[in-house]
Amino acid sequence: MTEIAADFSEIRGLIGHLPGPDRNAYAEAQARQQSLTKPRGSLGRLEEIACWLAAWQGRHPPRCERPRVAVFAGNHGVAAQGVSAYPPSVTAQMVQNFLAGGAAVNQLTQLIDGDLRVYEMDLEHPTDDFTTGPAMDEARCARAMAYGMMAVEPALDVMCLGEMGIANTTSASAICLALFGGEASDWVGPGTGVVGETLARKVAVVKQGVEANRAVLGDPLHVLRALGGEELAAIAGAILAARLARTPVLLDGFACTAAAAVIHALDHHGIDHCMVSHLSAEPAHARLCEKLGKRPLLNLDMRLGEASGAALAVNILKAAVACHTGMATFAEAGVSDKN
Amino acid sequence: MTEIAADFSEIRGLIGHLPGPDRNAYAEAQARQQSLTKPRGSLGRLEEIACWLAAWQGRHPPRCERPRVAVFAGNHGVAAQGVSAYPPSVTAQMVQNFLAGGAAVNQLTQLIDGDLRVYEMDLEHPTDDFTTGPAMDEARCARAMAYGMMAVEPALDVMCLGEMGIANTTSASAICLALFGGEASDWVGPGTGVVGETLARKVAVVKQGVEANRAVLGDPLHVLRALGGEELAAIAGAILAARLARTPVLLDGFACTAAAAVIHALDHHGIDHCMVSHLSAEPAHARLCEKLGKRPLLNLDMRLGEASGAALAVNILKAAVACHTGMATFAEAGVSDKN
Repeated sequence: MTEIAADFSEIRGLIGHLPGPDRNAYAEAQARQQSLTKPRGSLGRLEEIACWLAAWQGRHPPRCERPRVAVFAGNHGVAAQGVSAYPPSVTAQMVQNFLAGGAAVNQLTQLIDGDLRVYEMDLEHPTDDFTTGPAMDEARCARAMAYGMMAVEPALDVMCLGEMGIANTTSASAICLALFGGEASDWVGPGTGVVGETLARKVAVVKQGVEANRAVLGDPLHVLRALGGEELAAIAGAILAARLARTPVLLDGFACTAAAAVIHALDHHGIDHCMVSHLSAEPAHARLCEKLGKRPLLNLDMRLGEASGAALAVNILKAAVACHTGMATFAEAGVSDKN
Repeated sequence: MTEIAADFSEIRGLIGHLPGPDRNAYAEAQARQQSLTKPRGSLGRLEEIACWLAAWQGRHPPRCERPRVAVFAGNHGVAAQGVSAYPPSVTAQMVQNFLAGGAAVNQLTQLIDGDLRVYEMDLEHPTDDFTTGPAMDEARCARAMAYGMMAVEPALDVMCLGEMGIANTTSASAICLALFGGEASDWVGPGTGVVGETLARKVAVVKQGVEANRAVLGDPLHVLRALGGEELAAIAGAILAARLARTPVLLDGFACTAAAAVIHALDHHGIDHCMVSHLSAEPAHARLCEKLGKRPLLNLDMRLGEASGAALAVNILKAAVACHTGMATFAEAGVSDKN
């Protein structure tokens, strides 16, 4: 993808032609799991993860040595509606904090020996306020998706996706309401910590956003441009690029999963190469994960975003690979198998 | 503790005199958490862990660089009742596998840069079959506890405790039934993978064990000797020694937590320095954690034992410490705090 697409045509060209899992690598991983010195299934999801990595990396044994952590930052016009506990200037300030190494994701990326990339997306120009019309036009959204696609490079073992953007849980809630229906209040939560009147305003803003854009919401890509933000569009693009590059993905929390939901709406197998790293404390995340059929790996009441949960969950993937590749088989160890 | 106690007197001397948390270190950790560049509380349990480590290590900042993983292995007379999917010889075979580096816990300990110690407890001499009387006399149980205490050394940052012992989920179930009551079937599960008739026999054996030892079960230490095993007694001892040495503890799964329940029964604050690392797939573990007021850190359907879940959860502790110590404060980073 060398040219920047000015519309959704390239994206639409991919849908329906995404590569599937490597069934041979998956079968090899499953066979090895059965031979290792443990009761079958006793490593639980670590076994599932090893097989999933093999299937989506397209190789056996799978690897987890080169994780990339990509954090996309964008600003949202809807922040002007007073839906966050923090002013919009915090998005750029946090980007500086990422670059200086002072944020949570910096510490967590270092622990997993990962490669942290921060993508600052035109922070001086927030998207339009979606309560009165689309947040972005098609060209802007398509460019943001293409930008996200460029974050994926060959030979990464796993890609962690996350975001920073004041007001983006409002955007994520609106995307969910548009894609899955229900009441606005089903999808809205405290985000950075709003309560009371501000929370009520957030619910109203989400409802208003969906009403103002109703005409275009039949198409998931238009949901993304009308209610999303540049960082969420970039995540959606990165998910597709990772699929093409045979790179399994760890999604972060609510906002990141909402971006993934757009791909899921386009193709129900479109995010099979993605795991949800953790269940966010943002209440709508559980509902969203259920809609997507995803069971988060961790549940530690985190609700920070910035790929923090995804980076943390890489440890679980590393553990799965270490057990899968390093353990002895019953035959090698001279251990008696089941009676 | 240089002499090996021949009875429970030394243990009883400790109960009621266990050191409490360091409230200053806890308060310092809490104050720092409030200043870091994130919405307050947004790192969820990572914040709780950092404060808990400070409180029980008795220092601020807390550290997690020197984890020890202790696996105690014991053999159970009750294995003769045919309650496991594996023959008792597997205990010693798995110890050899630990020593050769081929087990899951070896791979997981390596990932956390931990120090793995395997304690083989008289495997040639299983405990007595508890369906006809106590598994151990007081002297044997007290010696096993003292042995477990010696696994704790000064200056460890965290201690992971786990076990290996064919038939020890049967023993753990009997301990739980004795301590908490209910039906035997409430506390019995598949263990290494028994189903059908074998599972029904396991339920009957647990019930029979509690009936056969009813006379002594009013005292938690006698519950441990009558229904436990040497590896479970050693874990109970290690929990006490860790408390005295200001070393926070990660408990592994069901059998390990059942050993901790004995200490909890002696002193309801006796395991405040312990976290349950993961929720085992063994169904009774959830019930047991609830009785103890513990919320496991991970829930990955693991049910292997051998400290595998505890070693895995050290990554979460490391992440908590890394965020706590490495993140910038709002002031340092020039990030605007909440409106």
